[in-house]
Amino acid sequence: MKHLLSAGDLSKDEAVRILDTAATMSATQSREIKKLPALRGLTVVNLFFEDSTRTRISFEAAAKRLSADVINFAAKGSSVSKGESLKDTAQTLQAMGADAVVIRHQASGAPLRLATSGWIDAPVVNAGDGMHQHPTQALLDAFTMRRHLMPDEGTGMGLEGKRVVIVGDVLHSRVARSNVDLLHTLGAQVTLVAPPTLLPVGVHTWPCEVSYHLDATLTAVAPDAVMMLRVQRERMSAAGGGFFPSAAEYSRRYGLDAPRLAVLPDHCLIMHPGPMNRGLEISAQAADSANSTIVEQVSNGVAVRMAVLYLLLAGADSSTTERTSR
Amino acid sequence: MKHLLSAGDLSKDEAVRILDTAATMSATQSREIKKLPALRGLTVVNLFFEDSTRTRISFEAAAKRLSADVINFAAKGSSVSKGESLKDTAQTLQAMGADAVVIRHQASGAPLRLATSGWIDAPVVNAGDGMHQHPTQALLDAFTMRRHLMPDEGTGMGLEGKRVVIVGDVLHSRVARSNVDLLHTLGAQVTLVAPPTLLPVGVHTWPCEVSYHLDATLTAVAPDAVMMLRVQRERMSAAGGGFFPSAAEYSRRYGLDAPRLAVLPDHCLIMHPGPMNRGLEISAQAADSANSTIVEQVSNGVAVRMAVLYLLLAGADSSTTERTSR
Amino acid sequence: MKHLLSAGDLSKDEAVRILDTAATMSATQSREIKKLPALRGLTVVNLFFEDSTRTRISFEAAAKRLSADVINFAAKGSSVSKGESLKDTAQTLQAMGADAVVIRHQASGAPLRLATSGWIDAPVVNAGDGMHQHPTQALLDAFTMRRHLMPDEGTGMGLEGKRVVIVGDVLHSRVARSNVDLLHTLGAQVTLVAPPTLLPVGVHTWPCEVSYHLDATLTAVAPDAVMMLRVQRERMSAAGGGFFPSAAEYSRRYGLDAPRLAVLPDHCLIMHPGPMNRGLEISAQAADSANSTIVEQVSNGVAVRMAVLYLLLAGADSSTTERTSR
Repeated sequence: MKHLLSAGDLSKDEAVRILDTAATMSATQSREIKKLPALRGLTVVNLFFEDSTRTRISFEAAAKRLSADVINFAAKGSSVSKGESLKDTAQTLQAMGADAVVIRHQASGAPLRLATSGWIDAPVVNAGDGMHQHPTQALLDAFTMRRHLMPDEGTGMGLEGKRVVIVGDVLHSRVARSNVDLLHTLGAQVTLVAPPTLLPVGVHTWPCEVSYHLDATLTAVAPDAVMMLRVQRERMSAAGGGFFPSAAEYSRRYGLDAPRLAVLPDHCLIMHPGPMNRGLEISAQAADSANSTIVEQVSNGVAVRMAVLYLLLAGADSSTTERTSR
Repeated sequence: MKHLLSAGDLSKDEAVRILDTAATMSATQSREIKKLPALRGLTVVNLFFEDSTRTRISFEAAAKRLSADVINFAAKGSSVSKGESLKDTAQTLQAMGADAVVIRHQASGAPLRLATSGWIDAPVVNAGDGMHQHPTQALLDAFTMRRHLMPDEGTGMGLEGKRVVIVGDVLHSRVARSNVDLLHTLGAQVTLVAPPTLLPVGVHTWPCEVSYHLDATLTAVAPDAVMMLRVQRERMSAAGGGFFPSAAEYSRRYGLDAPRLAVLPDHCLIMHPGPMNRGLEISAQAADSANSTIVEQVSNGVAVRMAVLYLLLAGADSSTTERTSR
Repeated sequence: MKHLLSAGDLSKDEAVRILDTAATMSATQSREIKKLPALRGLTVVNLFFEDSTRTRISFEAAAKRLSADVINFAAKGSSVSKGESLKDTAQTLQAMGADAVVIRHQASGAPLRLATSGWIDAPVVNAGDGMHQHPTQALLDAFTMRRHLMPDEGTGMGLEGKRVVIVGDVLHSRVARSNVDLLHTLGAQVTLVAPPTLLPVGVHTWPCEVSYHLDATLTAVAPDAVMMLRVQRERMSAAGGGFFPSAAEYSRRYGLDAPRLAVLPDHCLIMHPGPMNRGLEISAQAADSANSTIVEQVSNGVAVRMAVLYLLLAGADSSTTERTSR
């Protein structure tokens, strides 16, 4: 693995290896171990063309916990906005000695272009590109599911036979795309549920089921995990009846509320990539229920990003066993 | 001490302990000692909902000088502005493994809410909330006074019997509130001087004297320290005579100018939390006089914030005696 | 050397010493050596009153590769914009224990004022001030030329007898000013080429030749290096014929295109400070030709800035020989 661009690029072996590595990294999340020296002296650049504080600080925490130096490069207000091309930016980072580049970009495909252009030797990690992919999000979701749903926390395994329902604005969601790809690779069965207007053209060719009806799906599938996608309020029509449903209509038909919560199997995980619109796509009761993994997902995000940076940069190196304590 | 939310929460013993610890930290301010290893491997998050470069870099310098990693989280432009609640932000930081959260917020009470909600285990430090509190500012002011006004730099002592006059826009000043609380706790006598329109309702219940007349007060009190508060120019009325005085009228009645400087006791400290409006609340002559501690206050701010972070995070740990040198 | 304010302040010995030190630093650019411990425990503040991500991250990478802590202070949105003076900012940084201040400012002379005011003891490095100077840019350009044009990579030497042509908007270019100063000091012969409207008053007193005609100059000079300056598109007139040429006219008369490339000596370096306007002042073919050093200049920028910080802060100290490896 030279880059991490798309969840769809990962073989099952590669995905399992990342998840297994993340499991060893998660001791730093409990703060029993404060820091690992694996990437000491290396520089990770966070190249963010789009604001995303949550994702940026998750990668920043991951890199620092591996003892790397982090340089944050918010492309807004930079020479990029003065007309510098992605090529010039890439060459600049290469020339400055960036050892890895984490890129967030509003254009689908920008990370692929950065990685395959020859402009830069460093590994490229896609931290979300347009409506395309967000592979570390899918990895942290899979890590969370495996930990709860598979025996012995799932080490060495995929998600064979598990049933996952993903609900919401699939059309605009890179999280949904990446999850469908990775969950399929790991052996899970995925059902997407959305209003027809929030499904992309071609969704019927994806490796998953598609439904317009949440209640029927929850009953029929009896899922092991339900993942609610974030709704962009600004995409909801004020009156309903147009291309998009109104917020009230959306919430009534696709929100995870108390009656739907009651229908789920007892062990079913309740997931959300955050930030949530409480009361819109998810009720506060669902978000805060004992089955909710929403906060744990954030925590697992750091461990998964540590694993990705570690595997891309330190590879077969065994220095992670060395420990830093206070 | 689990959090630092308000200067009013501190007992005299706790306040003296912070000041004494800051005294041992100030060797790093002279740069004789570059850095202490006490918080190595820990992550301090600066969660700033309001711009305040001075306070942010003071906390950042303090944390780095204790070898902590620092993550800056400017809530502007983040998902917070996309409607994420303080709860979700707190849970995110908790999940990411923040070991301490330094919060600046425009809403009074936000740090208390963060600390007492159960959303987060990490210690919370209030770096200024609305018109409420700014406890590290009061601590650095007290540290500065103690160093100059008490025998042997004040170690182990409060500010027993010292007389402090605080002048200006008390109504909008969290600095004034925190100082009144802490100075009273430390045994000093405080007099607030302000135009009636810049005093809060209820000020007469505070543990201090209140006056509308600066000249009379300076003569009567013969203060050991005078603290000039920053005036927001935009709060001054253009013409005067309204709710707020005009800038010229304010300066004439409440500014620290040459004649007032001449009335002060020889040893009286001249203090200001910065940034100053030279020529408005304080003359350049006063700001730059030999008795001015304004620059030293900034320096002491780093030592005091080191002490606060150290006591909250390392507690009884004795590792600060270990030293890093070049 | 106490500060680095202007390329014109450097003696030949000082300049050569910086370039020689940069040569020893450049092993970290190849990433054979990850990091040097020379500035461990020291704090470098990047005080940027003007956005310049490229320059900021170059200094940040340089400081971190020397193990310094870096605090970024973007003066926009800070108390500076609330009316704080440069004096108060300087005193704040001094009081916080900044060991060096790297300043970028839109006003010519701000770094000099900061350094000579007595407000601050720390070394000041000019990272670009108005239309005045950008000395580390000139140093990295000279370093790049020396490496390619002088025997044995030039260690211990200047650029004696080398011929450099600098083309473009000299009027607004601090890069041109700094390069003319430094190249002259190092013994090179410089020719500036620009339309009359893009040359400053007084340019004929500078230690260089001046020409309005690029083609004639390239033929007559047979340069060892051609440096194309960045054009601000917003300065080009839409129609041409006014004070500034149109973009098309500029490109035709002063752009480095294929026919001009063919005229250059085989060994002639093609340089640009970046970011480029491909197709305006430089063709893609020229930018990407084998003789182009544009990417290498960025890389050398980190080494040169390491050398400057090292010489200002560590001086005669010999600790750079100690190495950090993974």
